[in-house]
Amino acid sequence: MVFKEKELTVLQDRHVQHMNPSRSLAESILSALKQCLPTNDRPIALHEPSFSGNEWKYVKECLDSNWVSSAGPFVSRFEAMLCDFTGVRFAVATVNGTAALHICLKAAGVKPDDEVLCPTLTFVATANAIMYCNATPHFVDSDETTLGVDPKKLEEYLRLKATVRGGECHNTATGRRISALIVLHTFGHPADLDSLKEVCDRFKIALIEDAAQSIGSHYKGKHIGHWGITSGLSFNGNKTITTGGGGAILSNDKAVADYARHISTTARLPHQWTYFHDEIGYNYRLPSINAALGCAQLEELPSFLEKKRSLAERYRIAFQEVEGVRFFVEPPYARSNYWLNAILLDPKAGSRERDLLLELTNSNGVMTRPAYVLMHNLRMFRGCPRMDLSSAESIEARLVNIPSSPSLA
Amino acid sequence: MVFKEKELTVLQDRHVQHMNPSRSLAESILSALKQCLPTNDRPIALHEPSFSGNEWKYVKECLDSNWVSSAGPFVSRFEAMLCDFTGVRFAVATVNGTAALHICLKAAGVKPDDEVLCPTLTFVATANAIMYCNATPHFVDSDETTLGVDPKKLEEYLRLKATVRGGECHNTATGRRISALIVLHTFGHPADLDSLKEVCDRFKIALIEDAAQSIGSHYKGKHIGHWGITSGLSFNGNKTITTGGGGAILSNDKAVADYARHISTTARLPHQWTYFHDEIGYNYRLPSINAALGCAQLEELPSFLEKKRSLAERYRIAFQEVEGVRFFVEPPYARSNYWLNAILLDPKAGSRERDLLLELTNSNGVMTRPAYVLMHNLRMFRGCPRMDLSSAESIEARLVNIPSSPSLA
Repeated sequence: MVFKEKELTVLQDRHVQHMNPSRSLAESILSALKQCLPTNDRPIALHEPSFSGNEWKYVKECLDSNWVSSAGPFVSRFEAMLCDFTGVRFAVATVNGTAALHICLKAAGVKPDDEVLCPTLTFVATANAIMYCNATPHFVDSDETTLGVDPKKLEEYLRLKATVRGGECHNTATGRRISALIVLHTFGHPADLDSLKEVCDRFKIALIEDAAQSIGSHYKGKHIGHWGITSGLSFNGNKTITTGGGGAILSNDKAVADYARHISTTARLPHQWTYFHDEIGYNYRLPSINAALGCAQLEELPSFLEKKRSLAERYRIAFQEVEGVRFFVEPPYARSNYWLNAILLDPKAGSRERDLLLELTNSNGVMTRPAYVLMHNLRMFRGCPRMDLSSAESIEARLVNIPSSPSLA
Repeated sequence: MVFKEKELTVLQDRHVQHMNPSRSLAESILSALKQCLPTNDRPIALHEPSFSGNEWKYVKECLDSNWVSSAGPFVSRFEAMLCDFTGVRFAVATVNGTAALHICLKAAGVKPDDEVLCPTLTFVATANAIMYCNATPHFVDSDETTLGVDPKKLEEYLRLKATVRGGECHNTATGRRISALIVLHTFGHPADLDSLKEVCDRFKIALIEDAAQSIGSHYKGKHIGHWGITSGLSFNGNKTITTGGGGAILSNDKAVADYARHISTTARLPHQWTYFHDEIGYNYRLPSINAALGCAQLEELPSFLEKKRSLAERYRIAFQEVEGVRFFVEPPYARSNYWLNAILLDPKAGSRERDLLLELTNSNGVMTRPAYVLMHNLRMFRGCPRMDLSSAESIEARLVNIPSSPSLA
């Protein structure tokens, strides 16, 4: 009986392979994934947090001190630890990564009616933050070797479409000022910061790093966050370290950091009792109880990074054996946090093959997901200016994120 | 020698009283405050939280479950408890009260270029939230017997200055639509909701309750939050109950609540893996770890309210004996949470007397503070339309908030 069943399965598999080669590819990928992952009764999440250090201790300390709101001492401690870890001089902890990016844009000088260059391959928060400033996202393409903004393509595009006058860059077609470029370190992999900074300097555009996914990632030996005027981190529950919800603004410029802190704290002028605010501000500061969690998580970060890199290495080796797909490896200049591991189906594949893979893996208890729907394909951004986005479109059709929690290593 | 010193003090005091009657008033008030408050080595805060229930248990449960972000189960539990407590059908937990108000305005239909009526006597978040919608605050006066928007004065003003056409209210002078009125339940005391709702209905204006300060407050036997299309709560560290930072949107209208939830969650359409967003959304949901704290605090709320009312009663009695000042008592229709107790100097007093009192109390370890600087006096709102605001101006010059923590009862 047992033999018969096995034979049947083999026959069925052959039939499936013959009828549907993509299903076979999806099955080979699922099998490679299972090789790398622990056998679990419950589904394997894409990314889940680990609380194995001082999380309880610090959160309890915070509760016992009665300082749970943003005025509490854990907030300054978390900010100091972020500065230590990244080497960036100033950090301002915020309620989340979206809030951080919004303030980054304002602190970098983005004004209403400006255009802000932004990858179409990003999480929606990047484009939303631009809209909160009453500015317009202007979508740019990404590079398949870095998953970040393509500096060469950007430079060629700006040469054709932009004019620098009076120390500012203008979109020749719309007449609007192009005040900033946001670059995402996609899934944790650093964008080509030196090249992008060079383009920004040449075209008088402020560089902002969307570092929401990339705490612990290094570019040419230095932690990300040093190239942008400001950078925004995120500590959402799905990130490498988490504060429940949270984020931070980084900057090496004291005036920029002071301004970011001021407008994140309702723009209130310091006074013992008077509530005097000198401009439109935001209620964006991280509560102390979340910062307490963050302090413990930052202590764990080096070990998380080690584990995540070891899982990535396991994936890399396993996927060498699978034809039709490659495991995305950090660019040569980078040491990545491998926040979300990714595989890319071969260029001949399309979104049908990707969807088949998503269905097979998710229905088999291995959570996977596609890249974000590209920003220029969301209805609220359809009218926004953009360059040719064929590379991002090709990446989006073929990329799948695979389980990446440090606990899986 | 001892006698001599005493005599000197008496003489000095008489001299001070003679030279400076306000200093004498301030001293009488400080003495009344000290009568009501425990003797402490450390300064007595204006309002500090108490964590004496299941706070640590639930927070630990939340950490142990690994669900610390907004997708965690404590968020739904907190929302269900808020509905139970207030009787309002739907609750959407948010990162803070400012975020809640911003979404309340959008959910109530406020659009760019609208005007929104708003008390000048409020915390800056109320006016800021209007600005986030690209609408204009239009400041209205408050009533000294309720500290809330004066319905009679508002009605007379609208009769003169507004036109209703096509089911909408317009400012006759500016031509802009007046789409909403926000009423604050100031320091926890319910505004005159029935009268305000009547004015709103007559003038086709949406009513929104700024309930940031008033969890636990009742109007004519019913918890606040039932009169506005939506209402916004706050659970900041200085509020009656706290989640570190947090807030909630309340509504009895399912469509309004669903929309509020949708745009608070990046307007993402539900799908297992696709990131599809159908409009500009916000990252405004409360993390689970903060909601866990909120669940425990809501359990404690009835006891906090009892203690706060007993402290208020002690103040009321003590201040009966002090000439030149009255303790603010809930309006006859209301049962207030007495979030921040307040005293009002007599109308003949001015801000000089108030400032003297602030200095004396704060330098003697009893924290007090004035009302907020009125919105129309902040430079970013100076150009906004407004009615005569003399009553708010008089209140602001004479009101002082005094210590109100439940632990003081």
